Amino acid sequence: MTTDVIAPARTRRAGFVGGGFMAAVHSRAARAARADLVGAASSSPSRAAAAAERLGLGAGYDSFEALLADPDIEVVHICTPNTTHAAFARAALEAGKHVICEKPLATTTADAEALADLAAERGLVAAVPFVYRFHPMAREARARVAAGETGRLLSVHGAYLQDWLATPRDDDWRVDTALGGPSRAFADIGSHLVDLVEFVAGERIVRLAASTRTVYAERADHAAIETEDLVALVVELSSGALGTLLVSQVAPGRKNALSIELAGTDASVRFEQERPDTLWIGRTEASSIVERDPARLAADAARLSLVPAGHPMGYQDAFNAFVADAYAAIDGARPEGLPTFADGLRAARVTEAVLASAERHDWVEVAA
Amino acid sequence: MTTDVIAPARTRRAGFVGGGFMAAVHSRAARAARADLVGAASSSPSRAAAAAERLGLGAGYDSFEALLADPDIEVVHICTPNTTHAAFARAALEAGKHVICEKPLATTTADAEALADLAAERGLVAAVPFVYRFHPMAREARARVAAGETGRLLSVHGAYLQDWLATPRDDDWRVDTALGGPSRAFADIGSHLVDLVEFVAGERIVRLAASTRTVYAERADHAAIETEDLVALVVELSSGALGTLLVSQVAPGRKNALSIELAGTDASVRFEQERPDTLWIGRTEASSIVERDPARLAADAARLSLVPAGHPMGYQDAFNAFVADAYAAIDGARPEGLPTFADGLRAARVTEAVLASAERHDWVEVAA
Amino acid sequence: MTTDVIAPARTRRAGFVGGGFMAAVHSRAARAARADLVGAASSSPSRAAAAAERLGLGAGYDSFEALLADPDIEVVHICTPNTTHAAFARAALEAGKHVICEKPLATTTADAEALADLAAERGLVAAVPFVYRFHPMAREARARVAAGETGRLLSVHGAYLQDWLATPRDDDWRVDTALGGPSRAFADIGSHLVDLVEFVAGERIVRLAASTRTVYAERADHAAIETEDLVALVVELSSGALGTLLVSQVAPGRKNALSIELAGTDASVRFEQERPDTLWIGRTEASSIVERDPARLAADAARLSLVPAGHPMGYQDAFNAFVADAYAAIDGARPEGLPTFADGLRAARVTEAVLASAERHDWVEVAA
Amino acid sequence: MTTDVIAPARTRRAGFVGGGFMAAVHSRAARAARADLVGAASSSPSRAAAAAERLGLGAGYDSFEALLADPDIEVVHICTPNTTHAAFARAALEAGKHVICEKPLATTTADAEALADLAAERGLVAAVPFVYRFHPMAREARARVAAGETGRLLSVHGAYLQDWLATPRDDDWRVDTALGGPSRAFADIGSHLVDLVEFVAGERIVRLAASTRTVYAERADHAAIETEDLVALVVELSSGALGTLLVSQVAPGRKNALSIELAGTDASVRFEQERPDTLWIGRTEASSIVERDPARLAADAARLSLVPAGHPMGYQDAFNAFVADAYAAIDGARPEGLPTFADGLRAARVTEAVLASAERHDWVEVAA
Repeated sequence: MTTDVIAPARTRRAGFVGGGFMAAVHSRAARAARADLVGAASSSPSRAAAAAERLGLGAGYDSFEALLADPDIEVVHICTPNTTHAAFARAALEAGKHVICEKPLATTTADAEALADLAAERGLVAAVPFVYRFHPMAREARARVAAGETGRLLSVHGAYLQDWLATPRDDDWRVDTALGGPSRAFADIGSHLVDLVEFVAGERIVRLAASTRTVYAERADHAAIETEDLVALVVELSSGALGTLLVSQVAPGRKNALSIELAGTDASVRFEQERPDTLWIGRTEASSIVERDPARLAADAARLSLVPAGHPMGYQDAFNAFVADAYAAIDGARPEGLPTFADGLRAARVTEAVLASAERHDWVEVAA
Repeated sequence: MTTDVIAPARTRRAGFVGGGFMAAVHSRAARAARADLVGAASSSPSRAAAAAERLGLGAGYDSFEALLADPDIEVVHICTPNTTHAAFARAALEAGKHVICEKPLATTTADAEALADLAAERGLVAAVPFVYRFHPMAREARARVAAGETGRLLSVHGAYLQDWLATPRDDDWRVDTALGGPSRAFADIGSHLVDLVEFVAGERIVRLAASTRTVYAERADHAAIETEDLVALVVELSSGALGTLLVSQVAPGRKNALSIELAGTDASVRFEQERPDTLWIGRTEASSIVERDPARLAADAARLSLVPAGHPMGYQDAFNAFVADAYAAIDGARPEGLPTFADGLRAARVTEAVLASAERHDWVEVAA
Repeated sequence: MTTDVIAPARTRRAGFVGGGFMAAVHSRAARAARADLVGAASSSPSRAAAAAERLGLGAGYDSFEALLADPDIEVVHICTPNTTHAAFARAALEAGKHVICEKPLATTTADAEALADLAAERGLVAAVPFVYRFHPMAREARARVAAGETGRLLSVHGAYLQDWLATPRDDDWRVDTALGGPSRAFADIGSHLVDLVEFVAGERIVRLAASTRTVYAERADHAAIETEDLVALVVELSSGALGTLLVSQVAPGRKNALSIELAGTDASVRFEQERPDTLWIGRTEASSIVERDPARLAADAARLSLVPAGHPMGYQDAFNAFVADAYAAIDGARPEGLPTFADGLRAARVTEAVLASAERHDWVEVAA
Repeated sequence: MTTDVIAPARTRRAGFVGGGFMAAVHSRAARAARADLVGAASSSPSRAAAAAERLGLGAGYDSFEALLADPDIEVVHICTPNTTHAAFARAALEAGKHVICEKPLATTTADAEALADLAAERGLVAAVPFVYRFHPMAREARARVAAGETGRLLSVHGAYLQDWLATPRDDDWRVDTALGGPSRAFADIGSHLVDLVEFVAGERIVRLAASTRTVYAERADHAAIETEDLVALVVELSSGALGTLLVSQVAPGRKNALSIELAGTDASVRFEQERPDTLWIGRTEASSIVERDPARLAADAARLSLVPAGHPMGYQDAFNAFVADAYAAIDGARPEGLPTFADGLRAARVTEAVLASAERHDWVEVAA
């Protein structure tokens, strides 16, 4: 009834940069994909050793350079603060390593473009974890849209709401432009929302009008914060469809409420990340709740279903599937829907357009 | 445990113009408010007689003028197509009648303004059924916002989605500019959404950027349709809060899905018209589902609660409360939150701003 | 799109006994049915006058007998404490009045049987408000079961949970055997649950094993309370289907949570009274949420739909439809699904079986 | 914000018996716990080799005996059909191996008791995957009940509904008494339901009245089926609380719908396995939706939270935590809430009581 998505062609040998929460998530996924966890680098040798010990990552390297120099490592997971991604990713690619780099891939479009070009040039696998694509029901939504079940797209209703930065007592390195980059809420979670909309819809946002707010210019450990807490935007898609997107990290009671509802001429489809095992299909005559039942899903959704219907799958399962697919790509497979540096570049472009629109207080075209 | 909101000071004598669905809703509400249903006028004497018979409205008048000439009628309910509202309302006011006029009050800002002025000048009650204000939990939401429970408003996430015009086979006089006016989806349902947002938030939308679509220029009985099916907008409120609003009559599976979610610095509040007996209060530590329990609501919400918690109240109940309050105003009371022609004018202004923004493809200020 | 269910053949002339919450509900329904509200009796002339004034019931009578003696009254609504129902109903029938009597019709099976016989003998309309039958989607559920959509019934999962008596500080005359009768939670709400299960399923409970609890023998104003707060039972239906029913008035957080889920060989159907406008249809391949859309419902459900899909209907709407149908029966119509004294007798029998089973701690057959 | 529950004291060396779906689940959990997956046995050497290859389990052994004889294996996962569990578990314990045995541990109380005794005698870890205990919010529910937040328990409303055997075309070895044992629906899923109720409530079911049904005596590949599809029961708990439990594998539209709602004198708590990341806390004044937010949970719930609030956790995560805790027990830890062979014995006793009650059609005491 279910396939084992993570049966690898052969054992990958992985290194990790960073030792925080995302490194834990990446390393669990690598282990689930039966990789050999070779070692870790961090901001100091002692932190690298501690992370390696804690997360079971093999050896601690003295530096990122030392990790790259290890010929035993073939794929590097970059799990460090945003503004360091581009340099690390570039160095890893230049060292001939495959790269799985946390998002945002880069904090400027130029950097992201250079990285995407470099990866293509070197023929290396270069992936960015737009991981919500790996919920089976997100795939099911996409498959149904692609099969024409919803008809021509008319509207998009999307939001990504969180509350972990809802008060000025809440703080994080991400609020700091120097570490997080010029956009925070949008680059961090808005980019996921746009990626999922475009992935499911199968089309692109072409124009947008955005407004942003920095609600708290001061937080516990930061002053003069310039990164936005909140973004509201209207978007137009290539088919002419319209939509609204609301992105906020200051929405009390909303933990990780990513939702998209696409309405087409024939049906609507709604996916909510916090309840990833169901899909709402809206029809005028009667709407359906489709459960993640591997026996009844599109092939690309069924292959990501590890357990039967009614046995909930979650975030780590989606991440595991992403890493398994990235590793499969290293093996030469072409897994459907693997988000690459080209998608990281796309996110940078949309983020840039959002900031520009908010600054100019005008509609902005999004570069294709 | 519950109060009887509709105990009138004395029996009102009501006349009705129009004989369709809304006339049925108005007349049920008038009857529940123990009014004397004196008579009805319609587009012909025979239609007036038939409506009077069918809806139990008393006598059928030969014309609107005949109805106005009856000194026995003190309040007139106008339930006719949109573009006729202004003239009927003006005539009724000039005849010294109180008026309850369906929305949109007028299809131009100038007409709406003149009507609001005229009503004020004459000292007559002049109400417009922004009826969703009369769900007790919408009042509860407003009371909590006003009491500071949500803190300073940061964002608004709103939508009003329907599907009764989702296919080109679906048709209605409202699609016709000549009868419905220049705006359809926004004037018809977007105006409700904006009214409810502003009513609950206690503040106004000051600027907006909108885009509209007419998905079907031809429907079963109409060609060259120019009124919009769909509107997406981003809004800025007077406090600086941002929001997105999506309004569509072509959203398969959505029947009357008016929802608003206001996030403040301290808490969020969400109200959904299709489940009007609960309110979601979002807080970082734990969110609540507040049930409509008259014993535990704000006074203005409790007074509209006819039945105990868990006994659902609905659309007709809300309409009944609106009419009861309008009648109470005729008796000299000043019921909290009665929507008047000033609110009808407000809706006209916002609608005008939306159409202007969509046409100019630019941000537009909304007149105060 | 919707029909006006309450268009009466002619104006009924109604009297009311009692002046509490249920009298308010009955009188609103009578008014909505365009009845002539002739007058009210209560436990004293002054209370009768006060109730008549407050509820708009016409004249206050000095006594129940005086009300019965008024030839102008043709239908009597009995809204008094439980143990008085039987005597009032008998007297009203003997006076040749049609009767709408609150439930429980009687607190013994013998009384209920005598009343049902008397009503039949006299040819009078005698109705009991098993009012949840009048939610359109309960009718829709019943129509689908009757049409074979669910197949042979296999299981019933039902509950009716409230919390208004959840603490010993909560009190009411119903806890007192002398006023409420020997069963409280079951007679009051369990009877609704059983009626709805049997109404929707189209078959009867034939055997049951029950257990009861009186959690609080003392409450604010009562001591030595013997009536039950809580009942749990297993039931077997005539088709062989099995089910569980849980009935509680001490379930914190549950206001009026009546839910039934019937699973058949082909599909399941779930109805929840607190969200009466939707029906869940469970199927192995994909489950549906059916909205109350008059255009798409069974005839008997559509005729009770006063407003379009997405415009919520509630408890008072259901009550209005019940009274309208009872009045229609007086006019000689035979409205589908009107609950009569025969249904009141059925409730008495099931209640008796529940108490007997709990006392003997054994399975008990329910008399047909 | 989250702890890494699966950081092991040292690497466990695990062997697996069986190669089906549950073996895949167990092996993923063992891998996540950083175990050394030494090898697998199955019903033939070739099947063992295939399972080992497919699931990445190390070597394939020629027989179960050969696996037991390997001194390198210290813990054996038994994932075979029900009726084989007891003999395999006995042999493994006798070989000095720790055992993780699929449920039902045994198909007779006598066998289960002997196994529990043997495990205790040998001082070996012997666990049974009542895995729903490992959803963090089930732990949170338990912690709140234990802390007195719900007060004295009054009622239990539980169900476990599935549809994978809803039609006679659906078949499985479990329907066959020879492989599955004398009880099917109850032993398979009812046992989970009872375990979770007792685990969260902190008290035991002491008496019950049950009824069972075998809806389909013939299925695709089996005739004369005697195992039950459906069980309905009423239960009494040691505190005097009452409850109903419905267990069905023939409930169309229900995939794995395990739900429990416990009502106490002060509050209710509801947990649904299909939405395991939230808990409903019912209170008369206002009910709460508690999200799985590690920063705000009881310690025992927080330690099982791998990812932040709003990032859904699922079935495999719960299974991983179970296996990690079982391995920690091998290391000498005493993890809270690890289900052992004593719990497997408990399940056997309740199952036996259910079958006895259904057969005698009478109340039955459950052995302590």
